[in-house]
Amino acid sequence: MTDGKAAPEMQHLEQHTTVGLIVVLTGNGKGKTSSALGMALRASGHRKRVCIIQFMKGDLYSGEIDGLKSLRTLVEFHQTGKGFCGIQGNPYPYHEHRANAQTAIELSREKIRSGHFDIVILDEINNALKLRLVDLPQVLELIDNKPPELHLVLTGRDAHPEVCERAHTVTEMREIKHAYREGIEPQAGIDY
Amino acid sequence: MTDGKAAPEMQHLEQHTTVGLIVVLTGNGKGKTSSALGMALRASGHRKRVCIIQFMKGDLYSGEIDGLKSLRTLVEFHQTGKGFCGIQGNPYPYHEHRANAQTAIELSREKIRSGHFDIVILDEINNALKLRLVDLPQVLELIDNKPPELHLVLTGRDAHPEVCERAHTVTEMREIKHAYREGIEPQAGIDY
Repeated sequence: MTDGKAAPEMQHLEQHTTVGLIVVLTGNGKGKTSSALGMALRASGHRKRVCIIQFMKGDLYSGEIDGLKSLRTLVEFHQTGKGFCGIQGNPYPYHEHRANAQTAIELSREKIRSGHFDIVILDEINNALKLRLVDLPQVLELIDNKPPELHLVLTGRDAHPEVCERAHTVTEMREIKHAYREGIEPQAGIDY
Repeated sequence: MTDGKAAPEMQHLEQHTTVGLIVVLTGNGKGKTSSALGMALRASGHRKRVCIIQFMKGDLYSGEIDGLKSLRTLVEFHQTGKGFCGIQGNPYPYHEHRANAQTAIELSREKIRSGHFDIVILDEINNALKLRLVDLPQVLELIDNKPPELHLVLTGRDAHPEVCERAHTVTEMREIKHAYREGIEPQAGIDY
């Protein structure tokens, strides 16, 4: 529910051509996934069709799981991850993480090529590549063979230079550490 | 519409205490507003109550205007801006921009203190402060007198150091320029 009505004098940008952008969101700071989710929200407002595939998430509940369900237009949402392997006692062995990520790559290829979407978001694919759960040629193939008008968003820290090289824009989210945050547990709605 | 069902073994983080975070999203790169919108989406999934006040936007249509309307929980959305004064032929004189921003400050104070929200997002308040459409004491007062459990998100480039000093986290979105992006007009769903 909102009372944000478009003012009568509000201008609408006229977009003359659709150029499918390759957008990379990387860096060690917060905001990569949430920025992609915000794009999905905006795209929904424009009645664009969005598919989100989360490569690393899937073991912990996060607000977008329910938040996305209520958007007015189709947002397909897939989680294939089992969390971050090798970190904080994650119980799954490497080969399981690898298998899940390979499933995500196959799913990504299918969704990108389907013609059903205007925007495909590959959330934390950069991390998956860094952790060798997917391979560079696989990721580059997704980028190089996407439909010309499809926007492709790749998020996650440690984006590979060759992925960045192909991007139209690369944004680095840089965390400026703060002592105030230390010791405060994750907060629902802000952190997840 | 989504087929992202929470898997049966999915864990839910237990949040023991709510600590109202002060979050600053700044820098010259893309993703500040979209990250805040993504937080609103996640918060909605958690059934948190969100208020967004956009200090600088209001003259151009952007997807969140309609995207936010369909979220399952209350997201109040206000735009008070008339665009960026002094930039690209913006027709409004400084005093009009200042008056609008002062309205936004009053609205912000009211919403922050109302007790009706879990998260308040002050979008591009940093820009408004930089452009002297609002004053530093006004912004610091909002931060210093917020309810303890309220999360407050301040976005926009050129965040004031004293605002950053009070924050729990400060994220800088840094744009890595790309020749590929030059000459391509804004794309709906990605840029607005």
